[in-house]
Amino acid sequence: MSSIIAQFQRTRFAASSLAMTSGELRNRVLASLAELIRENTAKILQENQEDVDALAFDHPMRDRLLLTQERLDALASSVLSVMQLPDPAGQVLSNKTLPNGLELTKITVPLGVVGVIFESRPNVTIDVAALCIRSGNAVVLRGGSDAFHTNTILVHLIHLALEKHGFSTDLVYLMPTDRAHVTTLLTAVNYIDVIIPRGSEALIQRVRKESLVPTIETGAGVCHTYVAASADLAMAVNIVVNAKVSRPSVCNSLDTIVVHQSIAAEFLRLVASPMQSYSVKIYADDAAFETLAQVSYPYLEKAVESDFGREFLDFACSIKVVNDMPKAIEHISNYSSRHSEAIVSSDEAEAKFFLSTVDAAAVYWNASTRFTDGGEFGLGAEIGISTQKLHARGPFALEKLVTEKWIGIGQGQIR
Amino acid sequence: MSSIIAQFQRTRFAASSLAMTSGELRNRVLASLAELIRENTAKILQENQEDVDALAFDHPMRDRLLLTQERLDALASSVLSVMQLPDPAGQVLSNKTLPNGLELTKITVPLGVVGVIFESRPNVTIDVAALCIRSGNAVVLRGGSDAFHTNTILVHLIHLALEKHGFSTDLVYLMPTDRAHVTTLLTAVNYIDVIIPRGSEALIQRVRKESLVPTIETGAGVCHTYVAASADLAMAVNIVVNAKVSRPSVCNSLDTIVVHQSIAAEFLRLVASPMQSYSVKIYADDAAFETLAQVSYPYLEKAVESDFGREFLDFACSIKVVNDMPKAIEHISNYSSRHSEAIVSSDEAEAKFFLSTVDAAAVYWNASTRFTDGGEFGLGAEIGISTQKLHARGPFALEKLVTEKWIGIGQGQIR
Repeated sequence: MSSIIAQFQRTRFAASSLAMTSGELRNRVLASLAELIRENTAKILQENQEDVDALAFDHPMRDRLLLTQERLDALASSVLSVMQLPDPAGQVLSNKTLPNGLELTKITVPLGVVGVIFESRPNVTIDVAALCIRSGNAVVLRGGSDAFHTNTILVHLIHLALEKHGFSTDLVYLMPTDRAHVTTLLTAVNYIDVIIPRGSEALIQRVRKESLVPTIETGAGVCHTYVAASADLAMAVNIVVNAKVSRPSVCNSLDTIVVHQSIAAEFLRLVASPMQSYSVKIYADDAAFETLAQVSYPYLEKAVESDFGREFLDFACSIKVVNDMPKAIEHISNYSSRHSEAIVSSDEAEAKFFLSTVDAAAVYWNASTRFTDGGEFGLGAEIGISTQKLHARGPFALEKLVTEKWIGIGQGQIR
Repeated sequence: MSSIIAQFQRTRFAASSLAMTSGELRNRVLASLAELIRENTAKILQENQEDVDALAFDHPMRDRLLLTQERLDALASSVLSVMQLPDPAGQVLSNKTLPNGLELTKITVPLGVVGVIFESRPNVTIDVAALCIRSGNAVVLRGGSDAFHTNTILVHLIHLALEKHGFSTDLVYLMPTDRAHVTTLLTAVNYIDVIIPRGSEALIQRVRKESLVPTIETGAGVCHTYVAASADLAMAVNIVVNAKVSRPSVCNSLDTIVVHQSIAAEFLRLVASPMQSYSVKIYADDAAFETLAQVSYPYLEKAVESDFGREFLDFACSIKVVNDMPKAIEHISNYSSRHSEAIVSSDEAEAKFFLSTVDAAAVYWNASTRFTDGGEFGLGAEIGISTQKLHARGPFALEKLVTEKWIGIGQGQIR
């Protein structure tokens, strides 16, 4: 047996005892962890600097990897805020007595051992560990090699917090970063209950293909906003610009504007100026291209097929002009990643048809797609945004880190 | 594009319109289907006979494949009973207004397109189609080749019922039975939302390995009953014998008796007689072997390692004697498939420790594991018993054929 499998086994064993502890006791671990992060700020920043220095000066990952005093403070606060959320385990979902007298109760229980594969961002290490400890789950973390020093010291602090309250350090296991070990994790059906990949599309594809363990995909967001004929155009400009520029690097940012042809020219002329001020590159279909060329939009290109269904993650978007709403819905259905979709409209019937027909984790009427987020939804820190339909859809937060268990209590009932 | 993918596309399209129909209208399809099954009994039996005749006279699948007047009546009644269950879609799970005025509602919606891969039993065709139509889902069925004639006429009747009420027949698609097409189904991520394998361990392993579509495993049941030192032995005998012999071919039947050493000899002498009357073969560990040999139990063999964790699906079981409850729990944890586990005990503290520590979909105190069943639990017909932890655990019935959708209604909110 490899040493990794042996550690998985210890983690599985530790998980079975964790489920028996009180939520109050587990919260004390979180309080200590927040304190330890604050006390060890200088040391964490030093280790983090080693990771950051190893990257080229202009490497795009540098900012995602970098920790600062401010980011560490936010991380410690995030741990404390997880303590405030209700314990998702131990809830009674149903309770009934069958005609034969068997008392049948369905309760929520921790999932067991959660595996998380993630890339550079070291805040994931702390967020995920805090959510798992709060909900009574053990966790196996497989972080990126470029965050090695940072993750090592963070997990060391997590272990100190666990030990301080008599918990086993096996509950949070940081795996070695060798790529081959990812396969060990993905095939460990006896030890891992669920795997959550957080990162690039390539990572998610690999997990989908190789994993024998059930998976929650927290996938890419190809998000559309449809500007209907009846839209309040000032509102539409506001929503579309916000959805694009407020944080282009995240999954709930806008990728494609779909616009009704009857108001397309007017809308595009209005949206051009704010988009230009953020230097947003626009990949426009023929109709949109014509209008934007007329106003001499400077960052303009003709869209090709692959510009639809493309997740830009940058100051860029594509535009599609449609003849009617069915065409808008068809376009979204063909290119959406089923994350977040929006309509701007003043027509209630039209909006409600859109909301019920478009198949996505979150659908909006007269609001920005940027709201799809555990914190915004009042669910607390999230493990990711699920774009698949089983178990958790949309923000995958503390409340979904549980499964169900049926408990039957009888007096000798047989069938 | 293959003709199968083209059909998947039509099924996906039909599913999007089904979600908009009323539960009442969909129920009319079920009423017509039950009627059509009753009206066409002779014809169904004739087609079924073709399938049955193709199997050797002593083929073990014959009985599972065979339909009778009585079984068809039960099938029609089962369709009618699905009509009585509440529509799982359209339920409001949460509703709140965020501080910025955005009204956020989480509702249940149909999964979309459900793929089911199953083997001989033709009742699955009707049960699954009825559950999917009731809940607003389209379904792709991939049945076994040995049920080809039966499944073809049953799906023909389903299509007649759909057409009668103006629904598209694309909603229920019976795939060709070539084995290669299973891969087409398992990789159709753009068209199928969830795949449920129903059948042998080999089928489930293949699906787990090959599927790119999220899967609900309805796996094997390796079920234990632990007879504790404090057990009422008459009750224990009753429960254990029922769990073994009432229907050995199903997943919730008993596979291994774990018994405390202090009462093992007495319990085994008591259980030997009823077990003998059902000719139950017993694979006993050394301690149990000694006792059962003393009473000349006729169907006795020494257990080897592989007799633990073995799903017998027959009049056979294994027995393990343990020194204390931790050892019992350890044995169950090592060999259980996490389906259904029971303890017989008169000690409440001991029983509650067992119920909370043993990790399984269903755990019982002083009752038979045979109760793990959608019908018994009052959930109606089931798609299978899920032995994994995501989305549905235990009986996977109508109520779980939905996912969630977040709907945000604003007045121009941005972030």
